Amino acid sequence: MNKEVKVCFEPSGRTVFALPGTTLLEVAARAGFIIETPCGGAGKCGKCVVRIASGSCSPAGDEEQKALGVRRISEGHRLACHCKVEGHVTVEIPETSLFQAGHKILQHGSGGKVIVKPRTTKQFVQLTPPGRENMMSDMDCVKKALGPVKLDISAIQSLPKVLRESKFSVTVTAIDNRIIDIEPGNTTSKCCGVAFDIGTTTLVGTLVDLITGADLAVASQINPQTSFGDDVVSRIKRCRDDEKGLGQLQEAVLQAVNTIINKLLKESGVDRKSVYEAVFAGNTTMQEILCGINPMSLAELPFVPAFREPLRMRAWDLNVKINPHGDVHIFPQIGGFVGGDTVAGILAVRLDQTKEPSLLVDVGTNGEIVLCHKGKLTATSVAAGPAFEGARIVNGMRGTNGAIEKVVADGDILINVIGNVKPAGICGSGLIDATAELLRLGVLDSTGRLQGPDDLPAGVPEAIRRRLIPNRDQYDFLLVDRAHTATGESLCLYQKDIRELQLANGAIRAGISILLKNDGLKPEDLGSVLLAGAFGNFIRRKNARRIGMLPQIPCDRIRFMGNTASFGAKMVLLSQTEEEYAARITQETRHLDLSLDPEFQMEFSSAMLFPEQDLETPPTDLACHER
Amino acid sequence: MNKEVKVCFEPSGRTVFALPGTTLLEVAARAGFIIETPCGGAGKCGKCVVRIASGSCSPAGDEEQKALGVRRISEGHRLACHCKVEGHVTVEIPETSLFQAGHKILQHGSGGKVIVKPRTTKQFVQLTPPGRENMMSDMDCVKKALGPVKLDISAIQSLPKVLRESKFSVTVTAIDNRIIDIEPGNTTSKCCGVAFDIGTTTLVGTLVDLITGADLAVASQINPQTSFGDDVVSRIKRCRDDEKGLGQLQEAVLQAVNTIINKLLKESGVDRKSVYEAVFAGNTTMQEILCGINPMSLAELPFVPAFREPLRMRAWDLNVKINPHGDVHIFPQIGGFVGGDTVAGILAVRLDQTKEPSLLVDVGTNGEIVLCHKGKLTATSVAAGPAFEGARIVNGMRGTNGAIEKVVADGDILINVIGNVKPAGICGSGLIDATAELLRLGVLDSTGRLQGPDDLPAGVPEAIRRRLIPNRDQYDFLLVDRAHTATGESLCLYQKDIRELQLANGAIRAGISILLKNDGLKPEDLGSVLLAGAFGNFIRRKNARRIGMLPQIPCDRIRFMGNTASFGAKMVLLSQTEEEYAARITQETRHLDLSLDPEFQMEFSSAMLFPEQDLETPPTDLACHER
Repeated sequence: MNKEVKVCFEPSGRTVFALPGTTLLEVAARAGFIIETPCGGAGKCGKCVVRIASGSCSPAGDEEQKALGVRRISEGHRLACHCKVEGHVTVEIPETSLFQAGHKILQHGSGGKVIVKPRTTKQFVQLTPPGRENMMSDMDCVKKALGPVKLDISAIQSLPKVLRESKFSVTVTAIDNRIIDIEPGNTTSKCCGVAFDIGTTTLVGTLVDLITGADLAVASQINPQTSFGDDVVSRIKRCRDDEKGLGQLQEAVLQAVNTIINKLLKESGVDRKSVYEAVFAGNTTMQEILCGINPMSLAELPFVPAFREPLRMRAWDLNVKINPHGDVHIFPQIGGFVGGDTVAGILAVRLDQTKEPSLLVDVGTNGEIVLCHKGKLTATSVAAGPAFEGARIVNGMRGTNGAIEKVVADGDILINVIGNVKPAGICGSGLIDATAELLRLGVLDSTGRLQGPDDLPAGVPEAIRRRLIPNRDQYDFLLVDRAHTATGESLCLYQKDIRELQLANGAIRAGISILLKNDGLKPEDLGSVLLAGAFGNFIRRKNARRIGMLPQIPCDRIRFMGNTASFGAKMVLLSQTEEEYAARITQETRHLDLSLDPEFQMEFSSAMLFPEQDLETPPTDLACHER
Repeated sequence: MNKEVKVCFEPSGRTVFALPGTTLLEVAARAGFIIETPCGGAGKCGKCVVRIASGSCSPAGDEEQKALGVRRISEGHRLACHCKVEGHVTVEIPETSLFQAGHKILQHGSGGKVIVKPRTTKQFVQLTPPGRENMMSDMDCVKKALGPVKLDISAIQSLPKVLRESKFSVTVTAIDNRIIDIEPGNTTSKCCGVAFDIGTTTLVGTLVDLITGADLAVASQINPQTSFGDDVVSRIKRCRDDEKGLGQLQEAVLQAVNTIINKLLKESGVDRKSVYEAVFAGNTTMQEILCGINPMSLAELPFVPAFREPLRMRAWDLNVKINPHGDVHIFPQIGGFVGGDTVAGILAVRLDQTKEPSLLVDVGTNGEIVLCHKGKLTATSVAAGPAFEGARIVNGMRGTNGAIEKVVADGDILINVIGNVKPAGICGSGLIDATAELLRLGVLDSTGRLQGPDDLPAGVPEAIRRRLIPNRDQYDFLLVDRAHTATGESLCLYQKDIRELQLANGAIRAGISILLKNDGLKPEDLGSVLLAGAFGNFIRRKNARRIGMLPQIPCDRIRFMGNTASFGAKMVLLSQTEEEYAARITQETRHLDLSLDPEFQMEFSSAMLFPEQDLETPPTDLACHER
């Protein structure tokens, strides 16, 4: 039924499967590589260059010829945003084409760069030993060399031994003006930190060299708190209602964090002792639970967070297993449901520096939306529900192996399944695709009703028409016949699944509408819509726009920003300036609480309807599985 | 053999036994009460007033008549420095007569008082809860009420729950500007701290109310580190040579500290959570081991400490079991062997504010001596060895039950034994008494040689003459016949014991001499010699002067100051001003290192000899067991 092709990325060797006709940009994202597309994939900026080492792709069109020139194309260079896979291919992605938050973004932002200047500094010093004429205490020896610093008890404890064993040649590690460690010899090259994205579902840790700024290792795992409930609300309630709840949830996430740290250390060969800072960005609930703060205030009006400003504490205050005397930094929070991950996102994409009105959208169970207009930031959040995560969808599942992640209507239904296995369910991006394609075909009307085979427009192919299955007084849509599924059961898109999607979609859409209206803006005024978060990377822009989740603007203004929470966390880890910047952004962002807003309720009701038509209707190419 | 009388002190009911003719001042000290004697016991100041509730004492002389008047004497009031016990008595000591460091001393010092102004403060506040129009975070609610404070993670963690359970009426506990705890309701009356004297041999803890300044409980116990060695040198070596040594020694002292805290809490009924600060004063070795700092630098030239400035850390950094988020304060140190206890002593007695040249002397295995001359402080230490603690003395023992603590030659030898039991040995004060009495009688010559019965001066009573027992070519002196001892063995003062005492005595004497010489002073220039430490309280001034340990100055210039380490620790606990003052004193004190000083070696050789005669020779009253 599918004719997926194998795409291998070098130098990592990571391999994924994709439908022929998929752009390399999209395939790369599926493999975890976010490629730089400042022009939004319009083929104009030439930043997304990759090289085809072997295999067959679509021929280079005019834009590519213009951007790269004949010679480079003959060497295999292509624009990832335009080049589509046709058969099995091996692709090299140069380091320079990969999206890296801040210092890359900045080239078209404020023009500056993220200057690596972490709070943690190491310094090798040859101290003057005390003598009969110079009876300085050990601490005085250090202060004589370094000035009026403050020594943590941890550094003082080892001081007499370290000084004498090293003949007073030592490396001093300080966080700000506080010396946390003194080691024998010169260890200045060993200075690391770890940046964490603490998601409701997934935790991602990146080990970063605080001297070069380079990533040393990345590791992730499911947030074990999911066993206490899929969404933040169930976890908040557990903390509020069960005396042991907070302790259990905190313990769960900390264990996972420490497991990730262990993985990072193992992969990189870095000593635990040389990891001096850990920065965490997550939503308000995740951050508060991580800190051992009861998030109960998020379960009652007026839904305020426990804190807004960034928190700093010592690693052993939280039992985060880096150097115990190192620092833990928790991102500042804008509101009860607009947390540190959103701040990290604003920071990573430099949203505040965009010249035209811009939106940052992070779609998930909770959708966070931030508008920047004339340098002013307004943030809100909407409860989208778990439909995008595959929950409450009959055949829904998370975007893992076996999930239909992409659906294309091209004569019949074509699907792409994660991991190149038989499908077991459909995930959020597949759901959006299927809905959008059915809207385009007229199989689905704007009220969200699946039409019967006899009510379909004339042009709908017979193969698709046959997929409509009567169910009482309505229809469901067959995606994959039982002969081709992992479970032996048919996979369908049910009428009630469409209703769930309408709720999720409507919430995001209403949130965006209200932010725009409040600032007197129309969708077409938007210079860019920046998609953040894991889910954002996997949706097809045209399809998300078709169902109304994203505003009706040209696709090249809609850009994928990758895991901006991780990027932002890394920026704060690497730079005190960014840390201060993040705190300032948080203070300056206006928080719009829609939870009891009657206008939102009205907007939400109408946003439940799908748009009658798309910006680019009629679609010129039904098979355009763009990215 | 003895006709000791029972002396009971009210209101505590504490009871001790004493030889008839002992001043109430001395008896009270033995019972643990240090009575105020600004005039040095000359009967002039009238500060040491007590009341005889029942029993018989010496009749009131002229000084007492003058100081107290007929009416008060008829009511039972007496001066403790002059009134001597004759039979069993019950004595009331008014609170106002007890020595309390700082605020009493100050009356004749700078004229100020210790103002109770600890770092820890509690404040009851009614916060404004957030609302729809006022969506402050929980932290913002606190900051709105209190200004730009910093909240410890410990305070933030409980914040959402505490605020909501208390309807936003809370008590905020801060150390300086750092909020460490927020509790529901009004708990402002519960605010305590604990002051510790960390001695090589004994640990003393005092629980103090940080609002009233009152002592709530006192507890002490033997330093369990003694099982690793009696003196600091053996413990330093253990830390240096045995990898586990430091950990074991630190663990030992911390366990004892926590046991004392438990006792204090039990006795006072105070909650552990309400104890926010712990202040520690001890010698350099004790302080460094307590902090987990390897004191190895004290075992090698040039004997420098790890730190000089005061240290502050959190209670759980050291596992000191007060409120875990509370503070631990470690006293500043002057040198490798002039530690925080000496600084506490200088502070407690206001040594820096004395107008005439003054000495502070703390006699122990290590003798610390500080001279104040024209406001300038010079400190030194001498290794006196453990003779004063009863070690290396054949029948020596510590000053505990069964120890001969006092020896009087009055026709025969009279002794007082701690606990009113049969004697088991002799402690430091008894050793000094015996030596001084034998010097006065001419039984001992200035070279430290016990004379044979035939070489004695004419006036020596036969009973005493008979106590000289030949031992090869020299003599020993029988103190208690085997019939009257706890062990059934005779207790003697051996010739070799005298040699040990000469070493200890000579070290102290040489230290004092050098300090005086360096400043161009003679003993008679000294306005006061202030005796600090447990041992100092139990010696007889005339006797200590007779053997040359103390300078040849009138006894009323020699004053007992009690446990100045505890007093100083308490002052710092109660007052930030005192804390800063202690740090300043430390910086301003000149440290004189005698360890390799050739002048000291010469001085020491001659100081081994006992003085040929005492200031007040010939003694007017052999039986004057003064205090």
